[in-house]
Amino acid sequence: MGEVIDKLWRRINENSQRYLGVLNDLLSFPSVSATGEGMDIAGDRVRETLESVGLRSEVYIDHGGYPVVWGELREERHGTLLIYNHYDVQPPDPLDRWTSPPFTPQIRDGRVFARGACDNKGNLAARICALDLLMEVFGEIPLNIKFLVEGEEEIGSPNLKTFVEKHKENLSADACLWEMGGSSPSGRPIIYLGVKGILYLELHAREKRPDLHSSWGAIVRNPALELAHLIASLREKSGRVPVQGFYDDVEEPDDDTLSLLEELREAESEIRAVAGEDGLMTDKPIKDLLNDLLLHPCINICGLHSGYTGQGSKTVLPSSAFAKIDVRLVPRMRPEKVLETLRRHVEKETGGRVTIKPVDMGYPAARTSPREPVVELVTRTAEAAFNSKPLIYPSAAGSGPMYLITDYLKIPCVAAGIGDHLSNIHAPDESISVENYLRGVLHMALIIINFVPFYRSGVAPYL
Amino acid sequence: MGEVIDKLWRRINENSQRYLGVLNDLLSFPSVSATGEGMDIAGDRVRETLESVGLRSEVYIDHGGYPVVWGELREERHGTLLIYNHYDVQPPDPLDRWTSPPFTPQIRDGRVFARGACDNKGNLAARICALDLLMEVFGEIPLNIKFLVEGEEEIGSPNLKTFVEKHKENLSADACLWEMGGSSPSGRPIIYLGVKGILYLELHAREKRPDLHSSWGAIVRNPALELAHLIASLREKSGRVPVQGFYDDVEEPDDDTLSLLEELREAESEIRAVAGEDGLMTDKPIKDLLNDLLLHPCINICGLHSGYTGQGSKTVLPSSAFAKIDVRLVPRMRPEKVLETLRRHVEKETGGRVTIKPVDMGYPAARTSPREPVVELVTRTAEAAFNSKPLIYPSAAGSGPMYLITDYLKIPCVAAGIGDHLSNIHAPDESISVENYLRGVLHMALIIINFVPFYRSGVAPYL
Repeated sequence: MGEVIDKLWRRINENSQRYLGVLNDLLSFPSVSATGEGMDIAGDRVRETLESVGLRSEVYIDHGGYPVVWGELREERHGTLLIYNHYDVQPPDPLDRWTSPPFTPQIRDGRVFARGACDNKGNLAARICALDLLMEVFGEIPLNIKFLVEGEEEIGSPNLKTFVEKHKENLSADACLWEMGGSSPSGRPIIYLGVKGILYLELHAREKRPDLHSSWGAIVRNPALELAHLIASLREKSGRVPVQGFYDDVEEPDDDTLSLLEELREAESEIRAVAGEDGLMTDKPIKDLLNDLLLHPCINICGLHSGYTGQGSKTVLPSSAFAKIDVRLVPRMRPEKVLETLRRHVEKETGGRVTIKPVDMGYPAARTSPREPVVELVTRTAEAAFNSKPLIYPSAAGSGPMYLITDYLKIPCVAAGIGDHLSNIHAPDESISVENYLRGVLHMALIIINFVPFYRSGVAPYL
Repeated sequence: MGEVIDKLWRRINENSQRYLGVLNDLLSFPSVSATGEGMDIAGDRVRETLESVGLRSEVYIDHGGYPVVWGELREERHGTLLIYNHYDVQPPDPLDRWTSPPFTPQIRDGRVFARGACDNKGNLAARICALDLLMEVFGEIPLNIKFLVEGEEEIGSPNLKTFVEKHKENLSADACLWEMGGSSPSGRPIIYLGVKGILYLELHAREKRPDLHSSWGAIVRNPALELAHLIASLREKSGRVPVQGFYDDVEEPDDDTLSLLEELREAESEIRAVAGEDGLMTDKPIKDLLNDLLLHPCINICGLHSGYTGQGSKTVLPSSAFAKIDVRLVPRMRPEKVLETLRRHVEKETGGRVTIKPVDMGYPAARTSPREPVVELVTRTAEAAFNSKPLIYPSAAGSGPMYLITDYLKIPCVAAGIGDHLSNIHAPDESISVENYLRGVLHMALIIINFVPFYRSGVAPYL
């Protein structure tokens, strides 16, 4: 059966300049949802790219916010795959730390450098090119394909829920392929079966008085001290959140999920490298670390400010202090309920002197069972495409609006993609390797051609 | 004996334009030690002012730093009064919140507005004018007078110790009048018998890794959290410092000192007004509040910073966090030893992950016994000059380099002056009342003419 793979891979390499051209086109326009830069034309440029490989495409703005680009191939086959991507990118700042301009893609040492190369235009381009490839090799696409390409992922997808509700009928599918993913430092493809939910808050401590000379600090309340005590009460040094009710709705991972963690021992060296020497909160074994990282909620301090923070000394008793925190959620936790739980805690701890302000109500978590057929299909095709056994994460540590697919639309969802540990997502010199990009095209093609037979019989005939 | 007072007061009012002119001259040049603005000419301008009323004056720069202006009247009398003031002022920012320009003095509604009007050029001018007055009325000054006017008080007097050591012989005196002071909201003159010491530090939490995506916060150490736990361990919500050894050297106030607190009940309403509604750390009675404010050490958080503090949400796990803190000291506590005590605590709490950086080693506290003759002299003359019974504070809540006078030179020291609760020290629209200024001239004159007889016989003949 390796014959088809060999043929596809040869053809991909023959077509590599064309496929890199599709990627280059997507990377050549800015589409920064946070600032709006380039967003006026971005939706149409994405539609043109989808149409260029024969997809029917349409730009929707009926949900409010930036356009959702819809792409479709209705082949009247007995299976439908929904593909979620986003065309918006993070701001390119700081510009002076880019080796080449962020919206002028450049290939150096076998890598494509540009903002969005990995997150998320590279994934989108690879998926589009797979259709082009299959049409060329087989003359047909043996599966219904639906592309949902939104423009607000980097700002929390505030309008995607409205879109999904409005277009629920059109969004039916057997499975969904999510936007993110990549390879481990040792080259093994990573597959995510879920994401955490998120809630972003500010804590504000304010006194009804102006800043005072710090000598008053002996007897007058200090909001910076109040905030420090509150933060210490929100999270122990070990990471545990000692807030009454915080863990009430946490879904304990089932045995299938826990057994996935056993297979992820290889992640330990990467985790230790990221955390730095003595950088982990606890000295737990790797399986417990992964459990905390992927399957348990947490509260993180993203920012703190109070009083004087310039050079030298200023003796001031500040009148206010604030913290920015994000709360990562696991399945069954609802952002609204978590907010209320934290509000009660803060009220109890501070007697109302600290208030909670939701900055972004975020979304709940999502997770697909490892027993869903799409998980095996994506895993087996990834192994064939990347020549390496995949690492299957029950969830990413990060977040995304995947619950709209899994919980609202009831479609199982997995993520796989073309990034790697050098990709600098959200940072200067974002990049992907050309090899990974082309293998992403192959992976996608293998998912498509095996989809219907695999769903019908459990056999993937083209592997 | 009221006759002499009446005569002096009449003459002060006749001379008021001239005395306001002396003040105006001092206020008309900037002398901002923090930025250096105007400091090139400030010392000479102060020397000229001292000379204009017949003092011998000299500008010293042999201690390093900004000039100390020395003024002297050696009258070969049997008593010497040392007078400490400073001619440097706080930066005038924010300029747009001044009603009139900070270095263009303006009189409105019976008040003189300018940077330094209260802190500390008003006190200096009133003291200088008292000599002019006495020379005019009596033809002589019945006391040796020494003015020590430094230019670095607002930046922590880093070079004053060197000056005092170099000129120790010339600095001998029976008593010293310190720079600050004023009247309570009800018009009672306030006399301070000491100041707290101070030590200014930064706490730095740094991880050996860059900023990370906040999803890592589930297992990777967060320096902002580390810092919050440390701050909570440095100071309880009640204000107590639960640091081993912190209170070891605290001098418990003696009965004389404690009995002064009994007389300060009137301060309660002012304290409550400053703190704002529910703004006090504890609901202790006023005597205990005053004990904490004036006679006990404390740790205050002046500033906090970590991570992202801009608009909206950024999901980041910061790599560093810092706090600025000041420690107010009471007699017998040494800044160096307190620093070591805190260093040990921080090491124990954080395992070396937070470091202490001294920003300003400050100075120890100073206090003069209420039984020193100068206390009674300054108190009785204040009552006569301001027509109101003084409030005697065993210490100010704030700090100053007074220990050089009391502990190094062994000269008893008290503070009394011309400010009030509307003076906006260190803030825009700093001001003093013209009435208070002129009464300050009277107060100083009464101290001088009563000094020698009071020290000789315990009688103040001109009251």
